Amino acid sequence: GAGADNDLYINQAIVFIEDAIQYRSINHRVDSKSLWLYRWYYSRTCQWILSLTITVILALAFVEEPSSLTVTSDVRYRLPAWNPPCGLTESIELLCFLVFVVDVSVKSYLIGWKEFWKNKWLMAYILTLIVSIADWIVSLSFFCKERVRIRRILRPFFLLQNSSMMKKTLKSINSTLPEMASVLLLLAVHLSLFTMFAMLLFARTKDNQQDKEWVVYFRNLPDSLTSLLVLLTTANNPDVMIPAYSKNRAYSIFFILFTVLGNLFLMNLLTAIIYNQFRGYLLKSVQSSLFRRRLGIRAAFEVLSSLKETPASAQQSCVSVGALVQVLQKAEMDSRCKQAIMRSLKMCSCDQLSAAQFQKLFEELDKDAIKQHPPSPEYQSHFMQKMQFAFGHPYFGYLGNVVALANIISICVVLVMDADKQPSERDDFFLGAINCFFILYYLLEMLLKILAMGLKRYLSYPSNRFDGLLTVILLILEIATFAVYGFPHPGWRPEFMGLLSLWDMVRLVNMLIVFRFLRIIPNMKFMALVVTTLLDLVKNLRAFAGILVVVFYAFAITGIMLFKGAVVPLGNTSAANTTHDNGTLQCGTYEQLEYWPNNFDDFAEKNVISWCSAHFQAKVIYCVLYVLSVHLICRWAKIYFVAWWLISSVIWVNLFVALLLENFIHKWDRRCQRESLSDIEYQRTVELMFRDVLEEPTEEELMEKLHQHPHLHLCR
Amino acid sequence: GAGADNDLYINQAIVFIEDAIQYRSINHRVDSKSLWLYRWYYSRTCQWILSLTITVILALAFVEEPSSLTVTSDVRYRLPAWNPPCGLTESIELLCFLVFVVDVSVKSYLIGWKEFWKNKWLMAYILTLIVSIADWIVSLSFFCKERVRIRRILRPFFLLQNSSMMKKTLKSINSTLPEMASVLLLLAVHLSLFTMFAMLLFARTKDNQQDKEWVVYFRNLPDSLTSLLVLLTTANNPDVMIPAYSKNRAYSIFFILFTVLGNLFLMNLLTAIIYNQFRGYLLKSVQSSLFRRRLGIRAAFEVLSSLKETPASAQQSCVSVGALVQVLQKAEMDSRCKQAIMRSLKMCSCDQLSAAQFQKLFEELDKDAIKQHPPSPEYQSHFMQKMQFAFGHPYFGYLGNVVALANIISICVVLVMDADKQPSERDDFFLGAINCFFILYYLLEMLLKILAMGLKRYLSYPSNRFDGLLTVILLILEIATFAVYGFPHPGWRPEFMGLLSLWDMVRLVNMLIVFRFLRIIPNMKFMALVVTTLLDLVKNLRAFAGILVVVFYAFAITGIMLFKGAVVPLGNTSAANTTHDNGTLQCGTYEQLEYWPNNFDDFAEKNVISWCSAHFQAKVIYCVLYVLSVHLICRWAKIYFVAWWLISSVIWVNLFVALLLENFIHKWDRRCQRESLSDIEYQRTVELMFRDVLEEPTEEELMEKLHQHPHLHLCR
Repeated sequence: GAGADNDLYINQAIVFIEDAIQYRSINHRVDSKSLWLYRWYYSRTCQWILSLTITVILALAFVEEPSSLTVTSDVRYRLPAWNPPCGLTESIELLCFLVFVVDVSVKSYLIGWKEFWKNKWLMAYILTLIVSIADWIVSLSFFCKERVRIRRILRPFFLLQNSSMMKKTLKSINSTLPEMASVLLLLAVHLSLFTMFAMLLFARTKDNQQDKEWVVYFRNLPDSLTSLLVLLTTANNPDVMIPAYSKNRAYSIFFILFTVLGNLFLMNLLTAIIYNQFRGYLLKSVQSSLFRRRLGIRAAFEVLSSLKETPASAQQSCVSVGALVQVLQKAEMDSRCKQAIMRSLKMCSCDQLSAAQFQKLFEELDKDAIKQHPPSPEYQSHFMQKMQFAFGHPYFGYLGNVVALANIISICVVLVMDADKQPSERDDFFLGAINCFFILYYLLEMLLKILAMGLKRYLSYPSNRFDGLLTVILLILEIATFAVYGFPHPGWRPEFMGLLSLWDMVRLVNMLIVFRFLRIIPNMKFMALVVTTLLDLVKNLRAFAGILVVVFYAFAITGIMLFKGAVVPLGNTSAANTTHDNGTLQCGTYEQLEYWPNNFDDFAEKNVISWCSAHFQAKVIYCVLYVLSVHLICRWAKIYFVAWWLISSVIWVNLFVALLLENFIHKWDRRCQRESLSDIEYQRTVELMFRDVLEEPTEEELMEKLHQHPHLHLCR
Repeated sequence: GAGADNDLYINQAIVFIEDAIQYRSINHRVDSKSLWLYRWYYSRTCQWILSLTITVILALAFVEEPSSLTVTSDVRYRLPAWNPPCGLTESIELLCFLVFVVDVSVKSYLIGWKEFWKNKWLMAYILTLIVSIADWIVSLSFFCKERVRIRRILRPFFLLQNSSMMKKTLKSINSTLPEMASVLLLLAVHLSLFTMFAMLLFARTKDNQQDKEWVVYFRNLPDSLTSLLVLLTTANNPDVMIPAYSKNRAYSIFFILFTVLGNLFLMNLLTAIIYNQFRGYLLKSVQSSLFRRRLGIRAAFEVLSSLKETPASAQQSCVSVGALVQVLQKAEMDSRCKQAIMRSLKMCSCDQLSAAQFQKLFEELDKDAIKQHPPSPEYQSHFMQKMQFAFGHPYFGYLGNVVALANIISICVVLVMDADKQPSERDDFFLGAINCFFILYYLLEMLLKILAMGLKRYLSYPSNRFDGLLTVILLILEIATFAVYGFPHPGWRPEFMGLLSLWDMVRLVNMLIVFRFLRIIPNMKFMALVVTTLLDLVKNLRAFAGILVVVFYAFAITGIMLFKGAVVPLGNTSAANTTHDNGTLQCGTYEQLEYWPNNFDDFAEKNVISWCSAHFQAKVIYCVLYVLSVHLICRWAKIYFVAWWLISSVIWVNLFVALLLENFIHKWDRRCQRESLSDIEYQRTVELMFRDVLEEPTEEELMEKLHQHPHLHLCR
């Protein structure tokens, strides 16, 4: 009947508007039951459960068999870690898989059968689930004793498929690959030509004293390639050229030429190419988000305009205000926006809304939320008003900064004086006394500020919240110290009591004081700009970080599977070491370098190694690689590490630089325009940063897209 | 008289047009004698003498007392270097100073007294000369035995002041300094806060086993600062965190946080800031060059229009064609341009030229020189025509590339097979035989190509010139080998004869063959693009490179003066080493690391060290710094190296990246437009790259500038 139809239209409009708010695609089923399922699926609870499941399945790696639950990771000292019994992690895994099965079925149902076949991500999702569950069954039937677990490598896929931003970014990276491949090819040509040159230059001679370079770095083709590849990462610069340079100064020309061409030109060319590709990336993604929002709103308008209450006589399709109010009340959206839209609805006294008016109403969604601080309390007494003026003045804040600086300097002085003292010689009195004084000042400052501004206004500033929280923690710590150890007095050096020693308490207090000093940031203009840029960047980088996590995870798990147990304590390795000519151990043995904690036996471990090597620094690579080559699994380790270096250090760091450049330059250009408005705090989002360069989609584009909708069939 | 006046005007016009061609300023004296002096000063001979003088005075550092004239720089092996007797280098220096005195007087005279006082560069030039000559006199009066020679540090100034590009770049860098300073301040805050944190975290404990981190890296404030500063350069990553990480995994969070914030965010922020500042730099400099050119031409027009022959009746000022022809014949300019201008003068049949027409004539100067290759010879015989078609075809070139690749692969195979053989076991027959065959093929290829294209056309392609030259050299080497050692046969292993051993000859031939393989570059599209970008970059980087040379030179000389003799052979240093606790030598002693050749005793040496450290790599810094701190001049060395790291690695590398980005993105954007024209080879200059975005200066701007000319007084 007409009533049921009307209800359906209203529900469709609600869902479309929610889609618009969340920048979601509107291409899903639109019948009553599917709409209910859709709203349920995208409800906070459901999405939260899904995120939790993904987190749990990824976190399992820390607890699973080579577990990271030891304090140290040094194979010499650590006790055998507690490993969960067979079946514990497996049952958690099964639960996660069940959630994923529900997720994939709901998703597939909602987008419809036809669309399902076009969606490669969903197909891959189903395939991954099938492989994982099969592997899980195999694992249980071996009672968890099998070595290879494919499903562990597949896990990060669940993270990847759940984020549309990450999928978009991956597509973007994918389109840059051909050009990156060209530069990498160029690098490979560069490397191989120079390797041949090096082998000809540093060939074996009759004089054994003279060919140190040959012995250590250019013994054969793989050695030469490795030496030069590591030189490209600058990790063995200038070690690699010292023997040759010692023989003849002119040999340095070869190495300088290689590094200038490879490191300065080709590597930076990679940065340039990636930056060039990603220059428009942010803008494009924001533009497509805008299109989705406009499309959702337009779709809501279209379904509302087909409501039966609308007078059929009107030439132009339009929407009654009543229906819109009904939709707004049921839709989930920011209450500030909802109120603003209701207000403007009341202001325009008209009864019917055209498409343009409808869109205009929802522009409220795009606007900056101007944060207004609650007013200060108004005191009657003249004295209180003066107090309020004095302690509400910015200069009082500056005084606080100066005091914090003085505190830092005093801690620094004590640290320098105590640096070489034995712990037993240390006198904690001085530091205890001054810290006590400073913390009292901080407390006083906080109270006076609250007095001047009122509690609500005080708490509405993030810097005050940071300040107040630290002050309260410091106060609690100080009171606890005094309660346990008594008041400071000369020669105040009590023995260990309670949970923490006095020395640890004092250190903790000092660290918090150093941390509290960060409150000066908003007071320094340039610093504030830099910090806000960095915060913006972190927001925009979530997708990249996610992809990095995916790559990290896959590499770490592969590393564990390939190299598990390759590093054994001294007693066991000596056999391997002695067989090798000790004179050529250029990297030092594993023991000499004290790289004991760097082994591949667990997951947390692997991530730290990956992280280190990501930072242009291939020293770990170099050493672990060498050690592994001693252990005769050299080929695979080399390929593994070179791949890791390329992906993490070269490509990811360059992507990061590209994004940073993009963000910073936009921000910097806009700085001047915003100068006058700087008093108002904006809750800025990426969308807003680009507002003035975005193009509004045209009516035709929107309608064309709407008519292509697989499930919604508009009358006209 | 009128004739003399006319002559003066003609001369002025000639000089102005030459100024326009060379993008020089026209603000110089314009009377007859000064004009003669000006043309003489800017004549090729004079400028060449000046450049030679600057080169000589800079090169003196290699020959002067701690001379670089030894093969090895290792203090253990090298013989005492030959040092020039007192007075030899000094007299060369005096000659150079005399040239500079003439240079500065001519320059000062030419710009005039008033302008002289405004020109800070000229004043600094005179001051530098005075100080240098005074220092020279002091030096001679001490019979060259004095230690401190200020004039050696001042030398690079002569290079700096002679290049207007370098002065402009320096100004540009200068304007970026405030923002760089902000980021550096931020880095300093970051560093100091983390240092305090580290000192609190890794404080000395009672257990001596546990505080390895404290002993090695965080003993006191300077040690901690150094550790973290070096971590910022990633040179001691991950060594610095291993002891702490070995104790507790959680300590790695501190180091990761420090590196992410410092290295990934702040360092890249510096790149972003520098790139943002330099984005417009190239465009702006090209724009000002264009203005100078238009101004010079306009000035020529104005002086020519005041010639007496011009009919006074004309309302608009104009120039007679005859006068212009007279000027053109005398002016020094590219003959192609001169002919083109003459041709268009003849084409326009008018007698008088307006200002606009005059400017239009000289637009020829801005145009690309389209390089036309001479035609191929036309053969009568049918057979020869077929030959010409076959060997002139690109496929013949590709075949040559394939053969070169085959040659490279064969060399590679022989190298891999011979890698571990003793020199006495090696059989040179195989390599000798195949190289002989390949070189014959190369010769044949060259001859056939010359036959098909004709010698002139063959030589007009740079790739053919490269190819031909290498082929000829290879042929000569091969003939020489056969002349000395006979033809190759199995077991061809003759003893050393003549200048080079057979083995060295073969190696040299192989290296040349590897080098010749670079001829494939123009055949690969992407490679060709990259290489042309790099070549463009090199052109644009001349100014930057010059400034880098200046900084290098100053640092090297300062380093020699500060640290001369700080590194002495083993026997002498042992005393210093033993006094120090050997357990804490984290960097290894100088001898262990075999850094013998890296000492500060001469100039070439210092440059190589500087160069190494410039490449993100502070390992040398780290070690030399440590050694120097053992030698008790630690403070100065630290400051010296930190300054060097900041300037060379941080700022210069970032400038380089900024320029590369700028160049590459311009080139890349234009690539698509030029696709169709790619057959024509352009002799591209920076000016041309920006042609479509440049703004033409307006008539008013030009005239205003002309009326401000200090020496030229126009009638109207």
